This record gives sequence, C-alpha cells and structure tokens, in this order.
Amino acid sequence: MNDAEKARFEAQMAFLIEMDKMKNIYRQSRVLHEDRRENDAEHAWHLGMLALVLAEYANEPVDLKKVLATVLIHDVVEIDAGDTYAYDAAGNATKAEREQKAADRLFGLLPPEQGAEMRQLWDEFEAGSTPEARFANALDRIQPLVLNYCKHGESWKAHGTQQSQVRGRMQRVYDGSDVLGEYAESIIARAVEEGILGAD
Amino acid sequence: MNDAEKARFEAQMAFLIEMDKMKNIYRQSRVLHEDRRENDAEHAWHLGMLALVLAEYANEPVDLKKVLATVLIHDVVEIDAGDTYAYDAAGNATKAEREQKAADRLFGLLPPEQGAEMRQLWDEFEAGSTPEARFANALDRIQPLVLNYCKHGESWKAHGTQQSQVRGRMQRVYDGSDVLGEYAESIIARAVEEGILGAD
Repeated sequence: MNDAEKARFEAQMAFLIEMDKMKNIYRQSRVLHEDRRENDAEHAWHLGMLALVLAEYANEPVDLKKVLATVLIHDVVEIDAGDTYAYDAAGNATKAEREQKAADRLFGLLPPEQGAEMRQLWDEFEAGSTPEARFANALDRIQPLVLNYCKHGESWKAHGTQQSQVRGRMQRVYDGSDVLGEYAESIIARAVEEGILGAD
Repeated sequence: MNDAEKARFEAQMAFLIEMDKMKNIYRQSRVLHEDRRENDAEHAWHLGMLALVLAEYANEPVDLKKVLATVLIHDVVEIDAGDTYAYDAAGNATKAEREQKAADRLFGLLPPEQGAEMRQLWDEFEAGSTPEARFANALDRIQPLVLNYCKHGESWKAHGTQQSQVRGRMQRVYDGSDVLGEYAESIIARAVEEGILGAD
C-alpha cells in the first residue's frame, strides 16, 4: 500500500470503529426476550433480515443490495443526533437539523466518494425518493410495530400511545408495501382490541 | 391474499420474530462503549457495515448483495446452538452437529424455497466455498480482532489467549482478503508488543 492507499484504509477503519457506537443507542422498542430496549445496531440488523425475507412484497421492484445497504446505514446519524421517539413532538422539531449535522460528520469520516454514496442512500431514505428507500421505510415502521405487539404493547403503555398516533405513521408502510400496510392495520386493530394500545 | 399466500406470509413473520433471539446471544467480544459483551445481532450488523465499506479489498470479485445476505444470516444457527468461543476445544468438538440441527429447524421455519436459499448461503459460508463466503469469513474474523484490540485485549486477557491461537485463525482472513490478512497481522503484532495478547 502506498501512502494514499494507507490513508484511505485508515479512514475506512476509523469509520467502522466509530460505528460501534450504534450498539449503545437505545430505541423505545424493547427486545422480545430480555427486559431492555433495543439498540440501533440490533434494529438495523433486524431490518436487514426483514428485507431478505419480505422483498417480494415491495410495491415496486427493488434492488435488494440497495435496500440492504439502506437499512444497515439508515440510523447511523443517531450516533450524534440520538434516537428521537416517534411521538416526541419537541424532539422531532429539531431532529432534521441535528441529523443533517450528524450526517456531515459521520459520512465525512469515509473516503469522499464512499461517504457521498452512503450519504445519498441516507438522503434518499429520509426523502423516500426511490423504491428502495420507500421499502426500507416500510420495514423501519413495521418492525417496531411487530415487536411492540409481541411485547404486549409495553412501550405504547409506557407512553400512553393512541392508535391514531400509530395509524398516522403507517402511510409510509403503504408507500413501500401494500401487503405490509394491511398487515400493520391488522396488528393495530388487534392491539386495540386487546387493550394494549389506546383506542383514542 | 389466498390461504396459501397467507400461510407463506405467516411463516415468514414467524421466522422474523424468532430471529429476535439473536439479540440475546452474547459473544466473547465486548462492545467498545459499554461494559458488556456483544450480541449476535449487533455483530452481524457490524459485519454488514464492514462489507459495505471494505468490499474493494476482497481477493476475488464479490457480489455485494450476497456478501451482505451471508453476514446477516451467518450466526442464525446460534439461536439454538449457542455461541462457541473460538478457543473452546470441547465446545468446538460438538459445534458442527449442534449447528446442523439448528439450521434444519431455523431455516425450516421459512417457506421451503426461501429456507433452502438461506441454508445454502450458510452452508457456503461454513465451507468457505464461494468468493462471497470467503470474504464474509474474513470479515467475521477481523471484526472481533479489531474490537478486542480497541478494548485493550479484555477478552484475550480473560481467557489467557496467546498470539499463536489468534494467528492460527487468521488463515481465513487471508483466504478472503490479503489486505485484511496483513492488517490482522499488524494488529496482532501491536497487541503482543503492548502486552494485551499472550506472546506464547
């Protein structure tokens, strides 16, 4: 390796070591078999598994490699910006600005063309501007719904969450996958019936 | 959805919910910023990030989608078979049999053709029989090495691990990537120099 190659490799490793922090960012969702919240690394891995298994239900044909890359990196900005709970209005007001700054720093650790590629994937995810981004967003919304339902609504109950709030977030599921959208509806209906999600 | 489609979707969701158990299987490696071991879900996600960033260093051209799928699923069998520490001789004697049985059950939860496809990826990973499997194996060995080194050799010290043991596992890194193999060598040498890995 010449010096430029060495610098490139070292930048890549520095980014990958920085990524370890994803294991310490805790979401509101809870893991099913321990009494603790799920972290961003686990969540992103789980979305990868959903992508592998559920790709056939995307509304539009998707490039699976791109979906996988998107779900793996979609929460990386939270290393600096933290996790913002879906129904935290104050947090969500400043979320975009915090996350843009985080994206600048974090993707900026990579060699420029690699950082730009990853940043674009993330921008597309945020905007829902490609079939892959729309499908990734659908997975990102259905996964905590399923976990929450399987965990008897623990985090809904903790926040007093109402079905209208959850339903309000489900458009993004339909945008990526009608099949998953309908599945989400059926879970919400069951959760309300079982009294683990507020009926408004 | 007709009944067959419904059954297919339900099998897929049952598999994906079962996958949550990956978040509770703890490896010997430690996360960098908390005082705890890393779990399989976090580890697989981290390998996905390595794959995205380091693919250019694979010895052979690789299909990145296949590498990503491989690293995401490579430890799924541990849901039933548990994690076996690399230097645990007794555990490793029964590992293959336990893992085959686990693969039968876990991939068997999926619709047959999807389960077979995932099982084949895992078989290839275990055998190192494709360029993607060899590169995935390289990532699987370099990641805990880097974590361990960054964590001042905590798990090496806990097990009294010697450099000859670590070096003995590095052939699989070279099989997938000479660049990563040489990087692994340099880390081992530094770890010995710093006294955090046994010098034999």
